[in-house]
Amino acid sequence: MTYFISADDASRHDLFPGVGIQTATGEQLTLSCVEMEPGALVPWHSHPHEQLGVLLEGELTFWIGDEKRTLRPGDMWRIPGGVSHQAQAGDRPVRAIDVFHPVREDYR
Amino acid sequence: MTYFISADDASRHDLFPGVGIQTATGEQLTLSCVEMEPGALVPWHSHPHEQLGVLLEGELTFWIGDEKRTLRPGDMWRIPGGVSHQAQAGDRPVRAIDVFHPVREDYR
Repeated sequence: MTYFISADDASRHDLFPGVGIQTATGEQLTLSCVEMEPGALVPWHSHPHEQLGVLLEGELTFWIGDEKRTLRPGDMWRIPGGVSHQAQAGDRPVRAIDVFHPVREDYR
Repeated sequence: MTYFISADDASRHDLFPGVGIQTATGEQLTLSCVEMEPGALVPWHSHPHEQLGVLLEGELTFWIGDEKRTLRPGDMWRIPGGVSHQAQAGDRPVRAIDVFHPVREDYR
């Protein structure tokens, strides 16, 4: 495993319309840099992995379980494994970070 | 455990001169938003936790084991547990994300 992954060498995935990620995969962790176009939606889903994240730019409305919050840059979230969630970008492009344990094999 | 942590409620720590973090702690993960003043140094250290990260702003010189790299925004790193590393900011303020598994008890 190499220690450094340049931005050009990161793994890229298009998840949903207007939602793309660049990822780095470790032994027990996946780091995902998320970009969303204005209004783009990550629809309701769940996974066994724990997920933490932070909003870097834009405005993001996040639903986790039965809670809903509109987030601003610097706001963070934590989603236990198995808890359903969705997220929708506001009127401006969104940049965010998500991290998962264990590794998201589908994001390699 | 609450799902949302607003920027104002995040845990803050001053690690070294000119190096501050805001963190969120999950069950198996710690997410750390790092700010470094120009020239600030995180000196050589190691920990049993796996660490992944990404540079958001500025220029960061990173030493991991016997490798050295000067990073630009979007570049990422992954540090297996127990591998020594240090990092120094360039001429501009640095913003970066670090994530750890398991939880960094000292960053709660």
